Amino acid sequence: MSAMRPITLQGRPLAGGRLPAVCVPLVAHTADALLAEAAAAAAAGPDLLEWRVDFFDAIADTAAVVAVARALRHATGLPLLFTRRSQREGGQAIPLDEAGVLALQQAVCTGDAADLVDVEMEADPAHVGAMRAATTAAGIGLVLSFHDFQRTPPADELLARYRRMAALGADVAKIAVMPQAPADVLALLQATLAASEALAIPVAGMAMGGLGAVSRLAGGAFGSALTFGVGQAASAPGQLPVAGLRAALDLLGRAA
Amino acid sequence: MSAMRPITLQGRPLAGGRLPAVCVPLVAHTADALLAEAAAAAAAGPDLLEWRVDFFDAIADTAAVVAVARALRHATGLPLLFTRRSQREGGQAIPLDEAGVLALQQAVCTGDAADLVDVEMEADPAHVGAMRAATTAAGIGLVLSFHDFQRTPPADELLARYRRMAALGADVAKIAVMPQAPADVLALLQATLAASEALAIPVAGMAMGGLGAVSRLAGGAFGSALTFGVGQAASAPGQLPVAGLRAALDLLGRAA
Repeated sequence: MSAMRPITLQGRPLAGGRLPAVCVPLVAHTADALLAEAAAAAAAGPDLLEWRVDFFDAIADTAAVVAVARALRHATGLPLLFTRRSQREGGQAIPLDEAGVLALQQAVCTGDAADLVDVEMEADPAHVGAMRAATTAAGIGLVLSFHDFQRTPPADELLARYRRMAALGADVAKIAVMPQAPADVLALLQATLAASEALAIPVAGMAMGGLGAVSRLAGGAFGSALTFGVGQAASAPGQLPVAGLRAALDLLGRAA
Repeated sequence: MSAMRPITLQGRPLAGGRLPAVCVPLVAHTADALLAEAAAAAAAGPDLLEWRVDFFDAIADTAAVVAVARALRHATGLPLLFTRRSQREGGQAIPLDEAGVLALQQAVCTGDAADLVDVEMEADPAHVGAMRAATTAAGIGLVLSFHDFQRTPPADELLARYRRMAALGADVAKIAVMPQAPADVLALLQATLAASEALAIPVAGMAMGGLGAVSRLAGGAFGSALTFGVGQAASAPGQLPVAGLRAALDLLGRAA
């Protein structure tokens, strides 16, 4: 696993530099439920948590969002990835427009309420640029991401997307695709490997659904620095339970 | 995992048709040690055992070999793959010439002492043909195999080898290669997937060593019907402990 770059926070690599880091998504709707979900997730030993804020009932209450994000980090001691997934890329409907989403993401940065913020690469370029500035100013990592819940673009198109994320200033470049056949899973792994060898930033690649589940275990061997496991509820199809995922990654880590 | 064919014995699929089947190699030097090794291996729940007879001190004693093979099946109730690995493909030095090896393999067939016999595709064509006849006559499966402990041939060359094994009459076609880089592992998986889609027989592909260890977990998603796990001692580099291997395969099976 020589070509891979771990995700680093404040200069420290996640998972001790052993790849891939395991992230558990939080998808509860209320603050209390999120804190309970986070406590259960933390018990399984992930390297970080992702708050999928598009599931949060009070997403329009900026102060509440910032407070919950801070509470999640404080309660678990784990790094937090703050993610608003758009409906276009598989997320929930929310009562904010894109300007409101940007303001919320900026508030999380100025409020020092997360360690990483996810922004979709297909957001408005001004949005991406503003979040690159806000995360840099706050010392927070910027994850640029791309999701295709319908299909898997060809490997060269995926590699071009990874390259574009790096060019946009990503600290981490993430791609999730839906395979229609096992060959699509190989295309995702091939593009992720090529990106991990070509780019100076960590990359994360995953194929979703049952066909793609293998990528959540195997991605680390092909340059992926991050994998998502299920805590209480999955945020995307094919995610594996975090305890079993961790055990399988440890098995591979010992062999490699 | 729709394109994959399980290995069948007497019309019954190994591992209940859930792929890949887990095989534990036995590498002890004496009959008593082999029986102990087999008992320990069986406790971990593999689908079959492989006796690497090139490790056996009394390999030149045909009656002893047949008796031990039968005892291994009787003691464990598990199917047995009988394998003499040549030195050229990573096996041990033995006091038999190739004619002696053929006679031994034929004795195992006539003695009904195994369920599958491994013959290297690069053996003399007359040897391969004789073993195709002997296994057929005995109702035993013929595994044709190819191993490269130095490198990974390109995917198209690997696919051509799978095709050649099928043309030679293999019931199972197996390839094990040594990757020098993660891309080699993808080449092995790609060729195995293509073979599983193109051929009418089950195929098994694995990349060895630390870099290749991921293929022992992930191969099933790309058409490989067989994976080797470590019982007491590995027979090739990168094999994973069978209990952990089984747990990880179960995890993937539930997701797929």
